[in-house]
Amino acid sequence: MVQRSIKRLLFGRPLHNRELSHEKLPNWKALPIFSSDALSSIAYGPEQVILALTAASAFAYGFVPYVSVGILVLLAVVTLSYVQVARANPGGGGSYSVARGNLGEFPALIAAGSLVADYCLTVAVSISSGTDALVSAFPQLNPIRLGIDLFVLFGILMVINLRGVRESANAFVYPTYAFIFGIAALIVTGIYQALSGIQPVLPPASLEKQWTAGMLFVLLRAFSNGCSSMTGIEAISNGVPNFKEPSAENARITTYWMSFVLGTMFAGISFLMMHFHILPMENVTGLSQIAEATLGRNWAYYYIQFTTMIILYLAANTAYNGLPPLLSILATDGYMPRYLSARGDRLAFTNGILFLTFAAAFLIVVYHGNTEHLISLYAIGVFLSFTIAQTGMVIHWRKEGGAGAKSRALVNGIGAVITGIVVVVIVISKFVHGAWMILVFIPAAIFVFKKIKNHYLAVSDQLGVNWNEVGLPRPERKHIVIVPIAGVNRVVQNTIDYAKVLGGEVHAVYISTDSEQIGKVLERWNRWKPNIDLKIIESPYRTIIAPLVSYIDRIDKKNNPNDFITVLIPEFETKKWWHRLLHNQTGWMLRTVLLLYRDVVVTVVPFKLVK
Amino acid sequence: MVQRSIKRLLFGRPLHNRELSHEKLPNWKALPIFSSDALSSIAYGPEQVILALTAASAFAYGFVPYVSVGILVLLAVVTLSYVQVARANPGGGGSYSVARGNLGEFPALIAAGSLVADYCLTVAVSISSGTDALVSAFPQLNPIRLGIDLFVLFGILMVINLRGVRESANAFVYPTYAFIFGIAALIVTGIYQALSGIQPVLPPASLEKQWTAGMLFVLLRAFSNGCSSMTGIEAISNGVPNFKEPSAENARITTYWMSFVLGTMFAGISFLMMHFHILPMENVTGLSQIAEATLGRNWAYYYIQFTTMIILYLAANTAYNGLPPLLSILATDGYMPRYLSARGDRLAFTNGILFLTFAAAFLIVVYHGNTEHLISLYAIGVFLSFTIAQTGMVIHWRKEGGAGAKSRALVNGIGAVITGIVVVVIVISKFVHGAWMILVFIPAAIFVFKKIKNHYLAVSDQLGVNWNEVGLPRPERKHIVIVPIAGVNRVVQNTIDYAKVLGGEVHAVYISTDSEQIGKVLERWNRWKPNIDLKIIESPYRTIIAPLVSYIDRIDKKNNPNDFITVLIPEFETKKWWHRLLHNQTGWMLRTVLLLYRDVVVTVVPFKLVK
Repeated sequence: MVQRSIKRLLFGRPLHNRELSHEKLPNWKALPIFSSDALSSIAYGPEQVILALTAASAFAYGFVPYVSVGILVLLAVVTLSYVQVARANPGGGGSYSVARGNLGEFPALIAAGSLVADYCLTVAVSISSGTDALVSAFPQLNPIRLGIDLFVLFGILMVINLRGVRESANAFVYPTYAFIFGIAALIVTGIYQALSGIQPVLPPASLEKQWTAGMLFVLLRAFSNGCSSMTGIEAISNGVPNFKEPSAENARITTYWMSFVLGTMFAGISFLMMHFHILPMENVTGLSQIAEATLGRNWAYYYIQFTTMIILYLAANTAYNGLPPLLSILATDGYMPRYLSARGDRLAFTNGILFLTFAAAFLIVVYHGNTEHLISLYAIGVFLSFTIAQTGMVIHWRKEGGAGAKSRALVNGIGAVITGIVVVVIVISKFVHGAWMILVFIPAAIFVFKKIKNHYLAVSDQLGVNWNEVGLPRPERKHIVIVPIAGVNRVVQNTIDYAKVLGGEVHAVYISTDSEQIGKVLERWNRWKPNIDLKIIESPYRTIIAPLVSYIDRIDKKNNPNDFITVLIPEFETKKWWHRLLHNQTGWMLRTVLLLYRDVVVTVVPFKLVK
Repeated sequence: MVQRSIKRLLFGRPLHNRELSHEKLPNWKALPIFSSDALSSIAYGPEQVILALTAASAFAYGFVPYVSVGILVLLAVVTLSYVQVARANPGGGGSYSVARGNLGEFPALIAAGSLVADYCLTVAVSISSGTDALVSAFPQLNPIRLGIDLFVLFGILMVINLRGVRESANAFVYPTYAFIFGIAALIVTGIYQALSGIQPVLPPASLEKQWTAGMLFVLLRAFSNGCSSMTGIEAISNGVPNFKEPSAENARITTYWMSFVLGTMFAGISFLMMHFHILPMENVTGLSQIAEATLGRNWAYYYIQFTTMIILYLAANTAYNGLPPLLSILATDGYMPRYLSARGDRLAFTNGILFLTFAAAFLIVVYHGNTEHLISLYAIGVFLSFTIAQTGMVIHWRKEGGAGAKSRALVNGIGAVITGIVVVVIVISKFVHGAWMILVFIPAAIFVFKKIKNHYLAVSDQLGVNWNEVGLPRPERKHIVIVPIAGVNRVVQNTIDYAKVLGGEVHAVYISTDSEQIGKVLERWNRWKPNIDLKIIESPYRTIIAPLVSYIDRIDKKNNPNDFITVLIPEFETKKWWHRLLHNQTGWMLRTVLLLYRDVVVTVVPFKLVK
């Protein structure tokens, strides 16, 4: 009862099937709900570009604008492509569903593996970055950084999501707008200060850009890092059914808006980073450095840090709206354990939520919540699933045909080629930094998906009813009941009574570890007269289980394979739990050992003690 | 198979009941076997006296001879008393058996509690002291002291004892004589050096003894510490049946010898300690200091340290010959869990050995293998059980009567009074140093003993066959079989087949979490025609277990209390263990929940998957 009360308090009352929400969102609400993942990435994306350019040599700093422009162009391409995806309205499951419908099983499983990796990384990266924003403002929290990460993960995100989807939507709207407003104000203030000379522009000398042989590689790595800002852009196309009618049209408009806001913020932050010549600092994010330089360390600075932290934690939450439904689709298709497809008593996909929480916790703990290292693993899965989705869309438009299908296929085709190139770029430039892990993970995931699918196919093959046999008389199946006893008492009497009720041939067996006891047991048995012969087996080595198993074996072997053998284990249920410790566990061990004999049914016949 | 091979390698082949050894020991073998515990205590006993006298103030050093003489007198009294106990030949169980036969339950349980505490402490103290001897010789081993303690405990003592009693006896003989020889040589050499002036006698000034108000208390504490040397003296009287005939006579002679050797060594070591003015040193035992001062740091010194270590570890082993049989007697009497009375497949009391090992490990870890702190807990239990045994012997002789009974009763009476006084002395002088823990432990142990006994009495009361009813017709007991199904497949078909074989009323129940599935399931059920009605229960909150339990409740309530209800759970056994993870655990949860319904028999009907 206490456990149930705690569960209710944390997760709320059970919800009825008909309470599954079908709320339709207006665009102004849909934008913050679906874009927190994408928008929040400006908290780490531009900084990761700087990080790559300053890590190799200080002479690359001046390339920041070039890399940023490249990323903005890529953003435009991806946006246009995803507008097409939203138009086709593939429902949940994103690139997995697109690929499954248009490209076949193997590309779909690649997409599924990428998405699984990516959602887990989204949670880990977003939480770590959110905590980075907090620690930048309050450096004294640095020692408990990991604890904060795990509290947010287990104490907030997991609990909220296990409570179910209904509550989580509205919580996004205001914080996301507050974040957009704050960053916009920061950018405007910063640019005004830069142009009006209040903040001195940096000397050109420090914005060096020397072209050397290895510089291309450095630039590609910076570009790959910046691509992490593009994660989450597919969220709207997965959520089309949640938009008000005309939903595809509204989703399209919202995608443009999201992309515009993201691009503007990315450009603005990149400009300010360069202007203030921000260099990576331990425990202080680039965004925090800009905010402090522009606004000073006052309430406005804390507003920026606080809204940044909130939107990053919300971004982690979006993965909770993405992965559990995907796992549910995968489970329904037989690629993941079936129970991932079932909704819990709060209508949430309980098992999927737990899966995501523990996977993210694993990543956070292994990487000690280090954002930079986590991001190294990040963008490759995203762009792999982008590429697959775009390729799938090309097939989709070709199948669909009709007016405009050709031009749409062209847009998605360009998108597929460009995101495909980005995948190659990321793999090459980030291979040793972690991309290899994703390249190991995805085939491993596909292997597991296929193994699971094969098992389910094999099971369904074996469990299928043979309808040709229906109506025919079933073969006669005899029943043999074996009752091992340790003496004559009421528990045994109760079990023998039960054995007689079952029908069939009853065999009582006494395993004797001490030959002096045999006479006494036989005398009591015969005095009781249960009309069943008692078979005595001597066990001079004092083991109970081995002689009993070999006795059952002997019966089993002379048995018709269709017959049932039941072993009844007499056991008394003690009144208090600690009383159990006072009795030997032979019954329990017997049950465990006999379960390996799969043709034997093992039944514990309980006898209730009242004191 | 691999587990079994490892078990065989470590613990040996199983032994047949008839292999239980009844070897009779000549006195020269019995002496080392039964006295290692008592004799080994001179490795720490005399040093503990010095420790108490130097802890308070240096002015008490001169009292060492007085305290030592007191301890020797006490040793004589205890020896004479125990000669009487050996004569009465009480068999195993020591003071518990004596008290149970002569004084009644309550004193017997006090003795039992004391003995349990004492045996566990013997193992902990002896192992720690053995390692102290080793570390004194090789100080570089100090950091891994605790590791050595635990290795000796688990890797040597536990394994040897689980292998069974037969091997352990002879291992004692030569190391014990080697130890006696070494200590005797050390004492003779030391006294020769002292008397011949090779080693200068200490200036009298350092042997101060100032009588102050608190000095009595210091002396009593030193005396209490020294009493730790008397542990194990009762071992021979417990082992009388192992002596050659006339066994009581031989045991008596051997007791005198043991006491003589112990007294001589105690006196000699105390003299040398005083002569060399040994002061307690961290990580170097007093015995090691004497050996180094007398012999120099050569092979003779290492011989002393090594034989000391060995005999201390052997002393720990004696507790393994003492506690498991005592626990077995307590278990047979119903004061401890029954399975402590059974011999394992090597004829050793496996569970008692594990109990002792883990209790000693607990003490060693909690006290970090610190001998001094462990000894604070030590002597009180020993002397409490001495007192009880002696008192019991007084009653014994009075009951027996005959020639010499009076004088024997007198000897035991004096022993009881004196050891009783020692108990009071120890309690007072060592109360804050740990004696209070023993005074808490013993009543707690008695409480547990009584609780266990009451439970066994209650169980035997409830399980006893009512012989008056035998032969009368047993009341008719109906059988209702409930089969929860999740669909129609071969597993369910197999379970329904089984249900039909059982006889009785069969109810099939389908819990629907999704109302769209109901029609399909019903259609398949009717097409299969099992001639059983399918009850449909809708569960809009998607839980399976609660609706099923309330269905069973409803059946249960209209049921005759004597009827049997069986719930059959259809389940398939997967071929590979990891396949289990791919299926939901409803069957398992159902079994667990239904086991709480003690009037319901729960049976899992397995269906074997072959791929």
